[in-house]
Amino acid sequence: MRRIGILTGGGDAPGLNAVIRAVVHTAKNEFDLQVLGLRNGFDGLVEPESVRVLSRSEVRGILSRGGTILGAANRGNPFARKIIVDGREEVRDVSAQALHNIEQLKLDSLIVVGGDGTLRISKELCDRGAPIIGIPKTIDNDMGGTDQTFGFSTAMRTATEAIDKLHTTAESHHRVMVLELMGRDAGWIALAAGISGGADVILIPEIPFDLQPVMQIFRARAKRGSYFSIMAIAEGACPKGGLQQFKIPAHGLHIPRLGGIAQQVADQIHEKAGVESRCTVLGHLQRGGTPTPFDRWLATRYGAAAVRLAAAGEHGLMVNLRGRHIGSMPLDEALAQTPKLVDPAGELVTTARGLGIVFGDE
Amino acid sequence: MRRIGILTGGGDAPGLNAVIRAVVHTAKNEFDLQVLGLRNGFDGLVEPESVRVLSRSEVRGILSRGGTILGAANRGNPFARKIIVDGREEVRDVSAQALHNIEQLKLDSLIVVGGDGTLRISKELCDRGAPIIGIPKTIDNDMGGTDQTFGFSTAMRTATEAIDKLHTTAESHHRVMVLELMGRDAGWIALAAGISGGADVILIPEIPFDLQPVMQIFRARAKRGSYFSIMAIAEGACPKGGLQQFKIPAHGLHIPRLGGIAQQVADQIHEKAGVESRCTVLGHLQRGGTPTPFDRWLATRYGAAAVRLAAAGEHGLMVNLRGRHIGSMPLDEALAQTPKLVDPAGELVTTARGLGIVFGDE
Amino acid sequence: MRRIGILTGGGDAPGLNAVIRAVVHTAKNEFDLQVLGLRNGFDGLVEPESVRVLSRSEVRGILSRGGTILGAANRGNPFARKIIVDGREEVRDVSAQALHNIEQLKLDSLIVVGGDGTLRISKELCDRGAPIIGIPKTIDNDMGGTDQTFGFSTAMRTATEAIDKLHTTAESHHRVMVLELMGRDAGWIALAAGISGGADVILIPEIPFDLQPVMQIFRARAKRGSYFSIMAIAEGACPKGGLQQFKIPAHGLHIPRLGGIAQQVADQIHEKAGVESRCTVLGHLQRGGTPTPFDRWLATRYGAAAVRLAAAGEHGLMVNLRGRHIGSMPLDEALAQTPKLVDPAGELVTTARGLGIVFGDE
Amino acid sequence: MRRIGILTGGGDAPGLNAVIRAVVHTAKNEFDLQVLGLRNGFDGLVEPESVRVLSRSEVRGILSRGGTILGAANRGNPFARKIIVDGREEVRDVSAQALHNIEQLKLDSLIVVGGDGTLRISKELCDRGAPIIGIPKTIDNDMGGTDQTFGFSTAMRTATEAIDKLHTTAESHHRVMVLELMGRDAGWIALAAGISGGADVILIPEIPFDLQPVMQIFRARAKRGSYFSIMAIAEGACPKGGLQQFKIPAHGLHIPRLGGIAQQVADQIHEKAGVESRCTVLGHLQRGGTPTPFDRWLATRYGAAAVRLAAAGEHGLMVNLRGRHIGSMPLDEALAQTPKLVDPAGELVTTARGLGIVFGDE
Repeated sequence: MRRIGILTGGGDAPGLNAVIRAVVHTAKNEFDLQVLGLRNGFDGLVEPESVRVLSRSEVRGILSRGGTILGAANRGNPFARKIIVDGREEVRDVSAQALHNIEQLKLDSLIVVGGDGTLRISKELCDRGAPIIGIPKTIDNDMGGTDQTFGFSTAMRTATEAIDKLHTTAESHHRVMVLELMGRDAGWIALAAGISGGADVILIPEIPFDLQPVMQIFRARAKRGSYFSIMAIAEGACPKGGLQQFKIPAHGLHIPRLGGIAQQVADQIHEKAGVESRCTVLGHLQRGGTPTPFDRWLATRYGAAAVRLAAAGEHGLMVNLRGRHIGSMPLDEALAQTPKLVDPAGELVTTARGLGIVFGDE
Repeated sequence: MRRIGILTGGGDAPGLNAVIRAVVHTAKNEFDLQVLGLRNGFDGLVEPESVRVLSRSEVRGILSRGGTILGAANRGNPFARKIIVDGREEVRDVSAQALHNIEQLKLDSLIVVGGDGTLRISKELCDRGAPIIGIPKTIDNDMGGTDQTFGFSTAMRTATEAIDKLHTTAESHHRVMVLELMGRDAGWIALAAGISGGADVILIPEIPFDLQPVMQIFRARAKRGSYFSIMAIAEGACPKGGLQQFKIPAHGLHIPRLGGIAQQVADQIHEKAGVESRCTVLGHLQRGGTPTPFDRWLATRYGAAAVRLAAAGEHGLMVNLRGRHIGSMPLDEALAQTPKLVDPAGELVTTARGLGIVFGDE
Repeated sequence: MRRIGILTGGGDAPGLNAVIRAVVHTAKNEFDLQVLGLRNGFDGLVEPESVRVLSRSEVRGILSRGGTILGAANRGNPFARKIIVDGREEVRDVSAQALHNIEQLKLDSLIVVGGDGTLRISKELCDRGAPIIGIPKTIDNDMGGTDQTFGFSTAMRTATEAIDKLHTTAESHHRVMVLELMGRDAGWIALAAGISGGADVILIPEIPFDLQPVMQIFRARAKRGSYFSIMAIAEGACPKGGLQQFKIPAHGLHIPRLGGIAQQVADQIHEKAGVESRCTVLGHLQRGGTPTPFDRWLATRYGAAAVRLAAAGEHGLMVNLRGRHIGSMPLDEALAQTPKLVDPAGELVTTARGLGIVFGDE
Repeated sequence: MRRIGILTGGGDAPGLNAVIRAVVHTAKNEFDLQVLGLRNGFDGLVEPESVRVLSRSEVRGILSRGGTILGAANRGNPFARKIIVDGREEVRDVSAQALHNIEQLKLDSLIVVGGDGTLRISKELCDRGAPIIGIPKTIDNDMGGTDQTFGFSTAMRTATEAIDKLHTTAESHHRVMVLELMGRDAGWIALAAGISGGADVILIPEIPFDLQPVMQIFRARAKRGSYFSIMAIAEGACPKGGLQQFKIPAHGLHIPRLGGIAQQVADQIHEKAGVESRCTVLGHLQRGGTPTPFDRWLATRYGAAAVRLAAAGEHGLMVNLRGRHIGSMPLDEALAQTPKLVDPAGELVTTARGLGIVFGDE
């Protein structure tokens, strides 16, 4: 074995650069391998002219930086790539090209860092013979097969610090502060930050909510002398009966409109409970910033472990964290357990309820 | 002189607790004065039953905390106080009551910490004989008569850190990130954070903008290989020709709708330039968090200086910062210079333009 | 069951207040129990006059604060308590008194939050009939029986941020920066922060070091154009052959002298390799600051889990974290696995070596 | 005018990269000038082979980074440069060479960023005809002729955050925490951080101290129920009667021994007052980390202003901050006011005393 490739795909996550750095150093120091960096996710596999050799000097100083030096933007997966033909966008299966290029580039192994979507594509490519090792990545923490993904710790930090900040201004002003956090399918960020920040209400996709019990906690708190409340709400949270009752405007296909659910809930509270409420939308801040020490640590260990698997000739695996231990499991098994959702009856939600946190289903 | 009072009014600002702490310690240690804390801004002057003596132990540990232990929420100014009469809200002039209570409470001096509105009320009360010393406070930094107000440094930190975070995710994804910051009348936060965070575009109320030159910088940057851009936009920024051309929905009277201008600009850029854009609304995060060392320092010096003026029998003054020096000036002169706006032709904007930052009037 | 007690013992750790808060809320909300807070570790069990009922209002706002509202300073364990008799310090076994007071206070259960020492005392008291549930706590992360203790994440953050800061100044000045971190027996903080901060050399108690290979990496890095290096060194790190060869002055019994090993190593490097070196000693900063979101989260879950065990009539157990799950195990089994040391041949050290990090045994 | 040079000299300070970035952008955008970067302070003027053209791409992303991309390490000033001749170090005046190289490099202007020492050398070179514009820089804030230097705000932040962290652990453990901060001649960091962090004792070079009043405040605080205290001590603080009474070991010439005074004071307190005390030495952490928004802002404005002066054909000036305004003054006048010391009878110290802070001269 002489050469491995690495690409980063899908949404941005703090820790990607730490993975890349660990892969380069480990490959060189432990196994004397050359490392090729493919730019812009799977695009780099289809347009191999954008490939470059990654040397130690190229990964110097990137450990503490968010983002990815390889870029993550791409034009879709090789099985359905968007191509401009005669001015119109067409979708083509270029997977054969991708597989061919792995050979052409003489890659003995390809390390793919990505979330659900990216790893499912990787699995398909593996089935067709690509020697891929997957590294799970998502700030949402909803990948199965691993205790945690890197990026989540940093997102949780940003979200918790936001709640900390809202506490002071809420206390001074007798308000409900509504904080919208990421999480379309899974409410991990809202749940974890809500617990660690001391939110009073947490609304997540896994637990459809009524505003009735939410209003009630505001009144109960006011009776105890707390005229302010903090609500952490995942962008995918959904009222019982569906969004339409809130008259949230239909979204365009192209323009993601953050703040939808949070602003609507804030408005409803204001109108129905007469309590002044303010809305904050963290948006992409949750993907940014220097990775937490934990995320750097986990990402580094993932990167090193992936190189070791590659050097051992393994493929079709995903590295993972189980307790204190870094290990691996077949990609398809991990994907079968994805998305990993919050268990409404589990220890975390039970603990949160015991603290007095309201989920809107009471 | 034996007793002084203190109240904090208007919007929340990091450093309020540092003022209160400094007032209590300085009054006791230097002048052996008793300090009364009035709760909830001018409400505390009208409902003096909420007054309490502030001892050293009550200000212990508050230096590093945002918010105000005295509360800032109030039912309006004593000259036009909202009162519920027979279930309906009425407006009454209760200033005579307020003035009477200053005597009743035997306050030799009253320290009022507040922004434009609160200090204008203070000036009116002074004209009617109240012995008030003002301390300027606003995160927007638009108070005249002083180089800086406390709260601004903390808001600038939060805003700059947000831009830092957006950089990484924008770089990885070839996007325009739009960050909405506070500033209805003055663009200080957007300007300062935009310069110190390295924004590419800054839109502020003082400089009406066109989107044309903004689009152009995105294209120019793309030519130089930078496919991402960061825009800092003050909530009060306004396009040439007015907001209506953006079809921003009319706001209800009661429900402040943050994110309006930022989301609209993000949408326009997306539609007209075909560039993917994302919107973040910091909202009240800018008022929260532990105050920066500078804000604690300035607030502490303001508090101590106000006590010294009070002990010297002065009133009708506002403490201020001039260069490195703490001083004071007549309240009415300071208010005559308020709001202090960004000079579109001044050194700061010129420096920003020299850096390549676009303001939309090019 | 009607009443439980809680005390915090031993060294300070970020997250203690989160435990206390979780215990109070969970006990009240889920089980309607009264919670007594015992002050100053086991002192509170021997001097029960310092006991007080903990209400919701007493734990308000403490989630994000370091330290412990119950105090941790104490005069030693009940089996060997230091007492002043006739002006001289004597050591007495007052454990019978402690056990008696548990009954006297009508505590159905006592939750003890502590490290190795505190939990060993708890185990002894359990053996004599005390209904104790233990919660593991140490910033050093060397407690057995659990994947992680709270406090470690915060200490790792402070240490990693310090390395981040040293990087910039080292780069500008061609220096070796030596950072001394906590860890008398176990090198977890130095190892984790060294990996996540990108240190070049990590010296820990588990791996006796020579300075020869350390000097060599400085020279090798200089050849590659890196004229600076960062070294993370645990306070318990020890050169092969023992400390005496460094002529580190004998410590007095009473005066802990931090900085010993780090300063000595810095001096040796300077003298023997002619490389300018600077020393920083973080000391108790590692115990301070607002707990990381993870530490608050873990501490909260531990506190809630301990109350549930107490309410179920369990005792002699320690709560723990295994992967994603909160569970428990017998106190004596957990203590038998303590201290948990870094495995010099394990995945973490191997990963670090693969990154090029030197441990001094090469 | 077609070309300007820039060098950064002396100790590292957060904001240097912001200056460089602003110089490059302003020179190009406003005046179409070429910018040469000279490496390693005045070394770059003597060894012009290390000079390189600075393009926009080279300053991309450096705004938020500490350190300096130009390097600051150097072999002394051109009037007394250390040179190795026949294996021995000699000192030579190479200023003629430096002046010659300014012509050789066709520099119409040279921007020098530095502290007291670097700017005094610049002044000498100016006297011999060099077209230099100075930019003041020191984390110690003791440069005259300007309200503030960049770097100070960041050092103050790091120092204040350290005091914040020590508070929690001190409170839990009834200890005196001694924090050593930078400041050999001037106590600005200790004074500012001590006030903004809420220290109980501040010892600075400008006010020789006795330990007697320091011990007394510990006792007075204990009487009020505060069994902990925080002391901020500048490295240059000196007891009345001199250091020898503390038996601080003589320092070697080559090995800077941080922690000297702090550890000695901690030991004395422990021995004489019987109070447990702990020592922390921040050392070079104060020079590191991402610059605060203020430092980036000030450094950027300085850099832009220096380019404007250079483009106007000015030299022999130093840019400065006066209140809210960026201006300039003759280098020699600014140097005549340097070092700027804390006034023991001024408003800041008086304010601190009013808060109850002890300086050791009471």
